[in-house]
Amino acid sequence: MSGERLIYMPLGGAGEIGMNAYVYGYGKPGQERLIVVDLGVTFGDMDGTPGIDLILPDIAWLEARRDRIEGIIVTHAHEDHVGAVGLCWDRLRAPIYARRFTMAIAKLKLEERGAQIPDSMLREVGAWPETFQLGPFSVGFVPISHSIPESAGLVIDSPDGRIVHSGDFKIDPTPVVGEPFDPELWAEIARPGVRALMCDSTNVFSPHPGRSEATLVDSLGALLRESKGLVVATTFASNVARLQTLANAAAASGRSVCLLGRAMRRMVDTATATGLLTQFPKTVAPEDASQIPRENLLLLVTGSQGERRAAASQLSSQGYMGLTLQEGDTFLFSSRTIPGNEKPVSRIMNQLSEKGVDVLDDEGGRYHVSGHANRPDLETFHDIIKPQFLIPMHGEHRHLREHMKIGEAKGLKSIIATNGMMIDLSGNAPKVAEYVETGRTYLDGAVQIGSMDGVIRDRMRMALNGHVTVTLIVDEQDEPLGDPWCELMGLPAKGRSNADLVEVLEADLSQFIHRAEKRTLRDDERLEKELIRLVRQTSQAEIGKKPEVTVVVSRLV
Amino acid sequence: MSGERLIYMPLGGAGEIGMNAYVYGYGKPGQERLIVVDLGVTFGDMDGTPGIDLILPDIAWLEARRDRIEGIIVTHAHEDHVGAVGLCWDRLRAPIYARRFTMAIAKLKLEERGAQIPDSMLREVGAWPETFQLGPFSVGFVPISHSIPESAGLVIDSPDGRIVHSGDFKIDPTPVVGEPFDPELWAEIARPGVRALMCDSTNVFSPHPGRSEATLVDSLGALLRESKGLVVATTFASNVARLQTLANAAAASGRSVCLLGRAMRRMVDTATATGLLTQFPKTVAPEDASQIPRENLLLLVTGSQGERRAAASQLSSQGYMGLTLQEGDTFLFSSRTIPGNEKPVSRIMNQLSEKGVDVLDDEGGRYHVSGHANRPDLETFHDIIKPQFLIPMHGEHRHLREHMKIGEAKGLKSIIATNGMMIDLSGNAPKVAEYVETGRTYLDGAVQIGSMDGVIRDRMRMALNGHVTVTLIVDEQDEPLGDPWCELMGLPAKGRSNADLVEVLEADLSQFIHRAEKRTLRDDERLEKELIRLVRQTSQAEIGKKPEVTVVVSRLV
Repeated sequence: MSGERLIYMPLGGAGEIGMNAYVYGYGKPGQERLIVVDLGVTFGDMDGTPGIDLILPDIAWLEARRDRIEGIIVTHAHEDHVGAVGLCWDRLRAPIYARRFTMAIAKLKLEERGAQIPDSMLREVGAWPETFQLGPFSVGFVPISHSIPESAGLVIDSPDGRIVHSGDFKIDPTPVVGEPFDPELWAEIARPGVRALMCDSTNVFSPHPGRSEATLVDSLGALLRESKGLVVATTFASNVARLQTLANAAAASGRSVCLLGRAMRRMVDTATATGLLTQFPKTVAPEDASQIPRENLLLLVTGSQGERRAAASQLSSQGYMGLTLQEGDTFLFSSRTIPGNEKPVSRIMNQLSEKGVDVLDDEGGRYHVSGHANRPDLETFHDIIKPQFLIPMHGEHRHLREHMKIGEAKGLKSIIATNGMMIDLSGNAPKVAEYVETGRTYLDGAVQIGSMDGVIRDRMRMALNGHVTVTLIVDEQDEPLGDPWCELMGLPAKGRSNADLVEVLEADLSQFIHRAEKRTLRDDERLEKELIRLVRQTSQAEIGKKPEVTVVVSRLV
Repeated sequence: MSGERLIYMPLGGAGEIGMNAYVYGYGKPGQERLIVVDLGVTFGDMDGTPGIDLILPDIAWLEARRDRIEGIIVTHAHEDHVGAVGLCWDRLRAPIYARRFTMAIAKLKLEERGAQIPDSMLREVGAWPETFQLGPFSVGFVPISHSIPESAGLVIDSPDGRIVHSGDFKIDPTPVVGEPFDPELWAEIARPGVRALMCDSTNVFSPHPGRSEATLVDSLGALLRESKGLVVATTFASNVARLQTLANAAAASGRSVCLLGRAMRRMVDTATATGLLTQFPKTVAPEDASQIPRENLLLLVTGSQGERRAAASQLSSQGYMGLTLQEGDTFLFSSRTIPGNEKPVSRIMNQLSEKGVDVLDDEGGRYHVSGHANRPDLETFHDIIKPQFLIPMHGEHRHLREHMKIGEAKGLKSIIATNGMMIDLSGNAPKVAEYVETGRTYLDGAVQIGSMDGVIRDRMRMALNGHVTVTLIVDEQDEPLGDPWCELMGLPAKGRSNADLVEVLEADLSQFIHRAEKRTLRDDERLEKELIRLVRQTSQAEIGKKPEVTVVVSRLV
């Protein structure tokens, strides 16, 4: 043995769905040459991360080893795989490798965030059998079917053997747009022997074989043919195949297509510019759409997850770009609601219902199919690849565990590797080499903050308990000058005593201040502590909760 | 015509699922004698109502007409039907009517909130054919199957005809505990003719006939028999039939039953005390449970919706009352996750997965059935009752609309009546008589607040944008005394300039203050406005968001 090793470590996407970032390395321990696969985001929510727009992997570990990174590979153009490229690149500065369409999207991400990347660092690559060298690795992008065109699994050859990184995938022989899943190609890749398969786990709990994108052609066609009024369809903008199917169905039923929402237009433009969409009908501009009879129009709109500012939400309430919905129109969610988004999606459905619009959702698969491999499809893929080790990725812990069990049942050596677990793949079985401290970085407005630095904790506390500002002036003799003042935010006006809460608080604080010992009045820290304690105590008695308190003591000197 | 009319008005539960409260009235317009059916709650969440424990209907309209209320009827003991009784009673002071078990739960709610209700106002009533008079109405509780024992539909006879108020129901001939659905009884009730059916709409989108509670007996039995380690099962505490089935299965597989969670014990105690549970096995106390071999134990626990402080959540992390889970144990969600609770439920599932505990959910109906009538069952009920009018209730707008369409397709006159719509039922078709201003009341700690009074809006803003306190002292000559101070809460420490945000803010504010015109410094309102504007402007430049600001100007006089 040379003392070198092959390592794998997820920094995001393992133990969660979203925010994918995986690292492979080869070399002497601590000196491995590294490649990064995907840099994705996940989305914040009011529940756990109020005010946070995007969540990205903590890349501090990578940044500290920047000189060892050979390249950043992007498997496909979904936000949870490419969304953090623009936000992270300046800290990593390694060349980016992607196929054409994916690279076009990555470029948009880089521009959006003002990343200072030279063109030479953007390395567009072709599909397998083309490969390229990244330090000790030889890498190839193998076309694989998913819900966005040009998705790729990776073949990563190292001195310690071949790795297959599935990327996000499903087994779809007829994906409408893009490359079908090709079992012979994968079998050929597997032939020399595969040391480890890193495999998508998203749909491991779905017991039935997945269905092809092409199975929707008939049902979507019938829907558009049979609907009387305007039809609106929402899906992920990146689901270019679905857009194509809907557009074809529109053409067949005499409807013009209008794209609403920036992401929708951008995706169709990019897919067209990169040659993926060649048959997409000419669309009408939103400002011209209202001239077209309703029954001759299909709107393809963003906002399938209930995003408040997206076209779907706007259409369900006041309208969008001059277009409004009415009784007799049909609104189709050609999508699945991601867990956690049920409430905003229902809100839209109910608003549409109030307008008399007929709402259709996936209807048990009639109008939507998943982009991920279900359990039997995962097994099919395992059986094609026949890896020595199966390392589940892209899933919450329960998905990874279930996937590991499937592997073990077939005699594949498996391990649950969650974010920050560095796995040594060089031996007879995958084993944990190291636990790396990792976590999440929040994009808060324009600033990246750590998830554990207390900002969000304070926001959540203010949201749960309200906020009180107490101000007090103390004169040169350490005597209070006048009474303390309170300002409330996010608190009920009156409490149990039915007096104004602010007055009760100010009365209690005044009484305290005027009785306080000199040593308390002299000591800022002590004074602040006492005032906070008192505000919280009085509030608890009056309103049954303890607010967050900011105390400002101003001393005249 | 006597000039009298029969009215119906939902104050909660119509246009939403939860927080049920319905009003019926009969008399001259504006002088109707009223009955209230159910006073339920719904639950707050971080998303829309941070810090709010419970949400209840706004009963201002009822309170203002308190002298016209003949009685408050509680159909069954679910929180969304009985949960607000304790919180509302002091404002309504009408007698409460319920069957035995439901009344026992209502009493607990009243006690919990310290309602000062005399015993004479608690009127326990028997089941149909027993009826009682409430002003112009004669009312009877008709047993109907649901997921809690002793649920009742109501027959409300008025001078203008018979109303059937379904309550929450399913068609279950074998509900394990409690009374089966009795089609003959309902047919007999329908025989004299029913003017209006107010009907549960919860499951109107479920296309297949519902399944009986009894269908779970075999699958739950097999699960308990075949599991090797400790088994934990969670379900709604009020699903007494499910608890009975699980307890029976435990007994059959040699397991002792231990109840964890206050609600679970309370519900079993109440059901036993009121004679509903006669066969429930003797349970072991939590403190004795750890003495029992794991494979001989079943824990029945609260927290099926992921509630953070409930037993299920505690068991998935550090343990509960000395009991901990381990590899080889099984955790069953014998429940459905209510939309909106997916994330907390997943959190528990993943924590259990990390412990190596096998997690089972309803598995497509194997371990859980719904308590509400699915679409075909609703149609069966319509066909039995044969009402003149069908008024859908207990549903979001889209459920009510779908249910209305079903009714209309069979020639039933129907209308969508959402909260605050008073419907006149006396004519040939239901019609809107009036729109009453209504809404939601929040229980915030110990205080009831209105949903529109700005408290929650301010909390959400602080949660999204953080908070800045600015203090400034102005002397007797209207000159600033020293510099303004800023205190931040819930904001990043540093912004784009990489300087401390607080210092950038204070520098900008100081500069402004020392250049400000006298007329600004003299004018509190103007000064405050300018300081807020400046803080928000600087913050936008530094961190890309505009915080909430509290300004305190102290003037020495």
